[in-house]
Amino acid sequence: MNLIKAYGTENSKADLKEIIIERRDVLENDVKIDILYCGVCHSDIHAARNDWGNAKYPLVPGHEIVGKVVAVGNKVINFKVDDIVGVGCMVDSCKTCNPCKQDLEQFCEKGMVGTYNGKDKHTGKQTFGGYSTNIIVKEDFVLKVPTNLDLKAVAPLLCAGITTFSPLNHWKIKKGDKVGVVGLGGLGHMGIKFAHAMGAETYMITTSPGKAQDAKRLGADAVIISKNEDEMKAHKNSFDFILNTVPVKHDINPYLGLLKIDATMVMVGAIEPLEPMHGGSLIMGRKRVAGSLIGGIKETQEMLDFCGKHNIISDVEMIAIKDINTAFNRVTKNDVKYRFVIDMETLK
Amino acid sequence: MNLIKAYGTENSKADLKEIIIERRDVLENDVKIDILYCGVCHSDIHAARNDWGNAKYPLVPGHEIVGKVVAVGNKVINFKVDDIVGVGCMVDSCKTCNPCKQDLEQFCEKGMVGTYNGKDKHTGKQTFGGYSTNIIVKEDFVLKVPTNLDLKAVAPLLCAGITTFSPLNHWKIKKGDKVGVVGLGGLGHMGIKFAHAMGAETYMITTSPGKAQDAKRLGADAVIISKNEDEMKAHKNSFDFILNTVPVKHDINPYLGLLKIDATMVMVGAIEPLEPMHGGSLIMGRKRVAGSLIGGIKETQEMLDFCGKHNIISDVEMIAIKDINTAFNRVTKNDVKYRFVIDMETLK
Repeated sequence: MNLIKAYGTENSKADLKEIIIERRDVLENDVKIDILYCGVCHSDIHAARNDWGNAKYPLVPGHEIVGKVVAVGNKVINFKVDDIVGVGCMVDSCKTCNPCKQDLEQFCEKGMVGTYNGKDKHTGKQTFGGYSTNIIVKEDFVLKVPTNLDLKAVAPLLCAGITTFSPLNHWKIKKGDKVGVVGLGGLGHMGIKFAHAMGAETYMITTSPGKAQDAKRLGADAVIISKNEDEMKAHKNSFDFILNTVPVKHDINPYLGLLKIDATMVMVGAIEPLEPMHGGSLIMGRKRVAGSLIGGIKETQEMLDFCGKHNIISDVEMIAIKDINTAFNRVTKNDVKYRFVIDMETLK
Repeated sequence: MNLIKAYGTENSKADLKEIIIERRDVLENDVKIDILYCGVCHSDIHAARNDWGNAKYPLVPGHEIVGKVVAVGNKVINFKVDDIVGVGCMVDSCKTCNPCKQDLEQFCEKGMVGTYNGKDKHTGKQTFGGYSTNIIVKEDFVLKVPTNLDLKAVAPLLCAGITTFSPLNHWKIKKGDKVGVVGLGGLGHMGIKFAHAMGAETYMITTSPGKAQDAKRLGADAVIISKNEDEMKAHKNSFDFILNTVPVKHDINPYLGLLKIDATMVMVGAIEPLEPMHGGSLIMGRKRVAGSLIGGIKETQEMLDFCGKHNIISDVEMIAIKDINTAFNRVTKNDVKYRFVIDMETLK
């Protein structure tokens, strides 16, 4: 038995509290990681509160994990004790289907195994996330963390980072492209940093004039207040790409109006029905709207390496594990700049 | 004065009737065309009835024109008297903006000049469409019609043809691709013919089991009844491309579920707000939805040449001009297989 401390919840209404969970033994391809930091993603709240209707309890959230390797299975090749590593949203997949063979494990046809609320392929039991003292993960799903970065601020890269890096990377954003990032939260602040680092002319597109200054500090060249019709008109049909990070139902038509001919807006935030899209918003200009979900493991490593090279980290507010319920409430009010990270020492 | 017979309407409520309109003189770059056939597009009805709120009266519809050249201006290079030619939805554009320079005149930044209800760049007066005995068009907007084709059935290619050919061509549909065409009407029946001729494994996707047989006659390899959940499930995540020709508001989420990872559905019919799209329909599989509007002049010529090579024409029902109001009513009831074409001799 491998019993460890974690923070989780027994049902959708209860606060998170300290519980004891069981981890599997270290298998031959496994890496055992002592968790140093874990980011608090909005998905953690949706899962804990069963907003998506698929929660299994007890549920231990956390898929933005940074830690230190403390043991490795005897067939592990790429990791050794004391390595600093990361774990994101996935801990396993079939590795044989077409998406997996194309390094798109997030779209595994058999279903990728979520870091929490998933089903462990070895034990058949539920997976538990990073709000815990350690985690045991197959090495294929463990990432190398560039050691020049501030580790606590690396944690959110494992979900918020790859979620925004992947579409910018996949749609080949390059120097000189005019890129808009809609929404300035956990995802949006990373989107701004990545677009800027890729050399794009980066615009923050927000409803809140109060966010302008911070957006510029993060790397935006300019800010468009989307409620201001004159500003929106001035940028009509001019964007090469828009990354839409708004996490809730909203009207995407005004943003489609900002795209150039043949340009794309990628949705990464709102996993819910949007306001009605007008067919003409797409037809006039052969415009496109697409979605993107985190990124595969190979691309996640590329993202971390890119961050190491460009010295990109998340803007974080550190908390102790006992403050997680307060943090959840503040996230739902969008009251964090821009990501809470739990210092997991506080659970030990 | 160049006064000619046409069929048009004086206001949004009135039936179409014979009226006299004025055409400009033949300018040095102009081609004068004696109209033989004119297709009846659903847009003609929307325009005549001012459904889009921009109608100017008198309004003479018709942008699926096939005719014979009867005069050319002294600088015309590519056409001569007796040539069989076509005119589609556009008769002019600025030719200097970026879209025009990329052969995308339909997206001209100054606004393309519609074949009807547009503003003539030379006279400043309104343009009148093909429900008339002749038309005078700048040669850059005149198309060569392959003479091996049945001319009356060529007329609908100028709008319904290019509208469906362009997205299939732009998204590079090729032999072996699995392509779905949603909706079997004027657009859909051309979509089926083109996808089949391009070598795609072509599926008709329709709500109406009664359309299956005809869809197969037109070139569909198989038919999916979209109301049948089992059929839809069996084809989940399997399509390389979907052409959505449904002309009215509808729920696109079930069709997005049919797309493969990274595949696109292109909307060409519904120029109105759609039912709410679920963000997850795009995010799960990095799927895309796009729009497409007719096609540029160069691509329209490619389409006609493709039709000449593959012997593709529209399925038409011929009418006399006096029957146009009945035809309008039948089009709104979807009671035509698949396009009315007016024999313009009946106006002479």
